[in-house]
Amino acid sequence: MQLALDEAWKYQFLTYPNPAVGCVILDKNKQILSIKAHEKAGCEHAELNAIKTALQNLNPKLIIPNEPNLAHEFICKNHNNLLKDALAFVTLEPCNHQGKTPPCARLFAKLKFKKVFIGTKDENDLASGGALFLKQNGVKVQMGILENKAKELIKPFIKWQNGTFKLFKLALSMNGSMLGKIVSNELSRTYAHKIRSVIDILAIGGQTIRKDRPILDSRLCSSKAPNLCIFSKQNLDSFDKEIPLFKVKERKIYTQLPKNTKFIMYEGGENFFKTFKDEMDMFLIFQSSILNTSKSLCVNAKFKPLYKSTFNDDNYGIYELLND
Amino acid sequence: MQLALDEAWKYQFLTYPNPAVGCVILDKNKQILSIKAHEKAGCEHAELNAIKTALQNLNPKLIIPNEPNLAHEFICKNHNNLLKDALAFVTLEPCNHQGKTPPCARLFAKLKFKKVFIGTKDENDLASGGALFLKQNGVKVQMGILENKAKELIKPFIKWQNGTFKLFKLALSMNGSMLGKIVSNELSRTYAHKIRSVIDILAIGGQTIRKDRPILDSRLCSSKAPNLCIFSKQNLDSFDKEIPLFKVKERKIYTQLPKNTKFIMYEGGENFFKTFKDEMDMFLIFQSSILNTSKSLCVNAKFKPLYKSTFNDDNYGIYELLND
Repeated sequence: MQLALDEAWKYQFLTYPNPAVGCVILDKNKQILSIKAHEKAGCEHAELNAIKTALQNLNPKLIIPNEPNLAHEFICKNHNNLLKDALAFVTLEPCNHQGKTPPCARLFAKLKFKKVFIGTKDENDLASGGALFLKQNGVKVQMGILENKAKELIKPFIKWQNGTFKLFKLALSMNGSMLGKIVSNELSRTYAHKIRSVIDILAIGGQTIRKDRPILDSRLCSSKAPNLCIFSKQNLDSFDKEIPLFKVKERKIYTQLPKNTKFIMYEGGENFFKTFKDEMDMFLIFQSSILNTSKSLCVNAKFKPLYKSTFNDDNYGIYELLND
Repeated sequence: MQLALDEAWKYQFLTYPNPAVGCVILDKNKQILSIKAHEKAGCEHAELNAIKTALQNLNPKLIIPNEPNLAHEFICKNHNNLLKDALAFVTLEPCNHQGKTPPCARLFAKLKFKKVFIGTKDENDLASGGALFLKQNGVKVQMGILENKAKELIKPFIKWQNGTFKLFKLALSMNGSMLGKIVSNELSRTYAHKIRSVIDILAIGGQTIRKDRPILDSRLCSSKAPNLCIFSKQNLDSFDKEIPLFKVKERKIYTQLPKNTKFIMYEGGENFFKTFKDEMDMFLIFQSSILNTSKSLCVNAKFKPLYKSTFNDDNYGIYELLND
């Protein structure tokens, strides 16, 4: 289950508005066949992704269509009982409804899985019922495996459903400086650009705009630039319109958060961080392997890491703020 | 091999004067049976450690003695061909000589391993010849697996053999401050104390002694406190003798590095780091998940990470300095 959780965290935020979900499939001898996650809304669910990979590991000649509905249909017809008595670990209860993709619970039952271990229950009325369906169709179910960690993983998803999820992105050098220019490496910045490409709004301060003259787009993943909300004491008209972010086509710029904004990322410097840190849900912090002589972030904040990993020489982590 | 390397890095420095070595054993169906390392000089080599664990996984009733010579003898008599045709990945060529522990190469041959994959050759005249012995005794050998990484792993060992290995320890907050008091957590400090318990000399600056009044012992691993070399413009007599480090029994204190010092750890603040960074072989850097308002390290240095991991909320890494 820990492997499924770690795989899911790699795609955290990128699955918006869907939950991050991971799935590990083992054969009947408990050997790992696949470790996969839901990577992006509209793409296959973690379960289908893992089942595809497991089948292809068992039969490399099998060519499974990419499109989730076609893949589902193809697998139901061509599984050849290859996954009979297999085991699955899924971080979230498999869905039981036809959304953009067909229900995963039915796939486990159809392929005659022996047992599905589930991290935590799906509280979404529409998609839930997967565990019950599995049990009714001869698949054993064990619920609540590493449940606290499984619940942490879907915190953004829970917030997206019922309110606004706010994420603060920080990029620091090893000594905590936040240069306006490039601090983190290309892989780190690509992950940040992928998040920019799915959020509703990127929140930014007037000070950063004037000082760094940024473009704030998603060029590293060749995706749509985010709409902006600029928090500034000054009127928007007072900004130099030659600053690149104003030249991005089809971008909306707000000065107040529009209604029904469910996912906001905040990017900025020390003052912006101080102003907004206490209303954030999570923090994404990149940290490079470089010491420099620029001014370091000077603020008190104690974090609880939810997930830590690296992009080459950079460390990064997803944190919650701890109250003193 | 990557698993063997990672396991070995966990015990880097602690094996002094021996090399850090990792070993992974797989059964004839390529399933992992054990992942072990050499943990400390005098304790079993990585290979014996991994073979012990593999045998106990296959036969939980087997009770193997702890003492390496007895363990070796016991395994030769009681292996029951359980590891016949097994595979081993070892980061360094298995030794072929009777030192404090019996030769590992003979153990692989005796147990009828099918093949041993080796990271890099042992250049030590005394212990080398393991690969040749294996081949002559019917065990296949493949040399040079992830060789560059295997060579990085034994850099401290190479230096210990031919000169002095210098390690700088830094403990930083997330924004790069170096508080005199506790920055890193207990697990991080325990690892640092374990290193203190094996080094020849701990090098420290007069400024740190006057400011922090430290004890600089190895209490967190209940081991012997290191001898010190104090670099100070002032005479030793000028220090307040009530500072705890002067009260440690059986501690030698030098003001110049004694001859034949093979392993030195440097600990200190910004000025000490600036003075000595360019003559260091490696850096051990702990970094907590806390932002604070203390002064941050202000110096230019670009690092290449050799190994990164975590101790709970702390990150830590072993780095080399990159030249600009």
